[in-house]
Amino acid sequence: MKKNILVTGAAGFIGSAVASKLIELNYNVYTIDNLSTGFIEKIPNNVKFIKGNTYDKNILQNFSKVNFYAILHIAGQSSGEISFENPVYDLKSNTESTLNLLQFCKNNGCNKFIFASTMSVYGDSKKDYVEENDNLNPKSFYSIGKIASEQYMKIYSQFGINSIALRLFNVYGPGQNMTNMKQGMASIFLSQALNDNSIIVKGSLERYRDFVYIDDVVSSFVLALDSNIKGFDFFNVCSKSMTKVSDILKIISQEFPNKIEISQEKGTPGDIFGIVGCNKKILKNLNWKPTYSFNEGMIRMINSLL
Amino acid sequence: MKKNILVTGAAGFIGSAVASKLIELNYNVYTIDNLSTGFIEKIPNNVKFIKGNTYDKNILQNFSKVNFYAILHIAGQSSGEISFENPVYDLKSNTESTLNLLQFCKNNGCNKFIFASTMSVYGDSKKDYVEENDNLNPKSFYSIGKIASEQYMKIYSQFGINSIALRLFNVYGPGQNMTNMKQGMASIFLSQALNDNSIIVKGSLERYRDFVYIDDVVSSFVLALDSNIKGFDFFNVCSKSMTKVSDILKIISQEFPNKIEISQEKGTPGDIFGIVGCNKKILKNLNWKPTYSFNEGMIRMINSLL
Repeated sequence: MKKNILVTGAAGFIGSAVASKLIELNYNVYTIDNLSTGFIEKIPNNVKFIKGNTYDKNILQNFSKVNFYAILHIAGQSSGEISFENPVYDLKSNTESTLNLLQFCKNNGCNKFIFASTMSVYGDSKKDYVEENDNLNPKSFYSIGKIASEQYMKIYSQFGINSIALRLFNVYGPGQNMTNMKQGMASIFLSQALNDNSIIVKGSLERYRDFVYIDDVVSSFVLALDSNIKGFDFFNVCSKSMTKVSDILKIISQEFPNKIEISQEKGTPGDIFGIVGCNKKILKNLNWKPTYSFNEGMIRMINSLL
Repeated sequence: MKKNILVTGAAGFIGSAVASKLIELNYNVYTIDNLSTGFIEKIPNNVKFIKGNTYDKNILQNFSKVNFYAILHIAGQSSGEISFENPVYDLKSNTESTLNLLQFCKNNGCNKFIFASTMSVYGDSKKDYVEENDNLNPKSFYSIGKIASEQYMKIYSQFGINSIALRLFNVYGPGQNMTNMKQGMASIFLSQALNDNSIIVKGSLERYRDFVYIDDVVSSFVLALDSNIKGFDFFNVCSKSMTKVSDILKIISQEFPNKIEISQEKGTPGDIFGIVGCNKKILKNLNWKPTYSFNEGMIRMINSLL
């Protein structure tokens, strides 16, 4: 018999890709999505969809008779910058939702919970590679709420719910929302280039990120799902490679058929200069490693758009 | 002209005592309280009271024309143990409320915010005295929500709202709720002794706490209110003295007119063994120190009850 899995946020970039892979792996996939930033067209075929908010207790009553093997909580407001526009909504969608879903797990005998956390729990770091046990230094409402969610997971592990937080670094790739100009360094630059063959960079070309390709992110969720980890654990999902803004511009310029004009403006307030993660822990415990270099991934993404 | 101050939770033990002192100091005091655990009779005379939840945006509209000098946020579910009964309510009353009030400060030009935080942000500690920059290790929904609130205050300090979190240790004294048998080690023992001259201790007599008398807690709020601290800061409010369960029993036995029978049962799950705080930082920065020894405070509390 097929196992049932709830993937929240399957109308979004990451949730959609994870749900699609789980359908392929022969799971029975359910989703809740409020379509606030996702698109109904992105929900993969055969996924059972209920429109609603993951922080709404009533919405979960729809599943009171479903025996879930696992919940993968991927829904939620997903940008540090945007969390400043409506902090209460961010708290509800990223934190109250986690509590609601964990309580559902406890009441309904689901003992596996996997959570899309974020590199932004670390804030700025002076280290070459941030490691999982480094100090947390949240700089946005978004990252505060993700930390609280991880702490909730630790508490619920006492009740037998085994949980894993995947601290995702800069996720990019085909399927990313190309209309959101506030999130995704690669997608923002690509949107601009597609629009009028020009890119305006806000801030230094020396800023850098640790990019991780969507297919590799999907595999981290699948490995977390298959793991036998007991209690609560948390992992960086990252490439351990520094990619500078100038590197991104270079590959876009190389791959685009037309010449791309590049100009610079001053930076966005609160933007971090750079962060790169260490991925030793996830390699050791989940046997995960990134399989796409940034150049390979970007070429795939650009080809999907041109 | 009198300055306006909003003290949330003035129907509760600490909020009531703080509001009473501020009335005495000639402030114009307003309060919001949902009376879920507080008592309307405890709200001091001359305090303007609105019944409602501090996490309710609409409730704050009542104050849209009041020019507040400061907000002292003391309302909220106040027990780690009880937070396990309704984690979502705990999140709303302790965390969403803080966000709602800070947003109100930002929108209404109030630039002083003082928050009743808790020693339980530290969890268990192997140190003799926990200090403010020690690791946080929350063990309850309650403490997770208090940490998130402190982190919100740090973010709002970027918008010019100066804020202080007072991490209260074991507060006790006259006015404490004597009917709540899940909160307050001193008050629980006293309630039992008053009821039938017997005390059942759940757990070891060697367990210990750092007790701080209600009048000293009130003075910490007044000093925080009067301080010129800019940005965000946080302080332990504690005695730096270890009081064992056996010490509490001893003073109750000495002061009660009848003989008190003492018996032991096994401990409550999740109860910490002991914690004592360092109070150097608050002495240095706010010139606060405790003025009541535990014995003095307990004698006053017992005399108020007999």
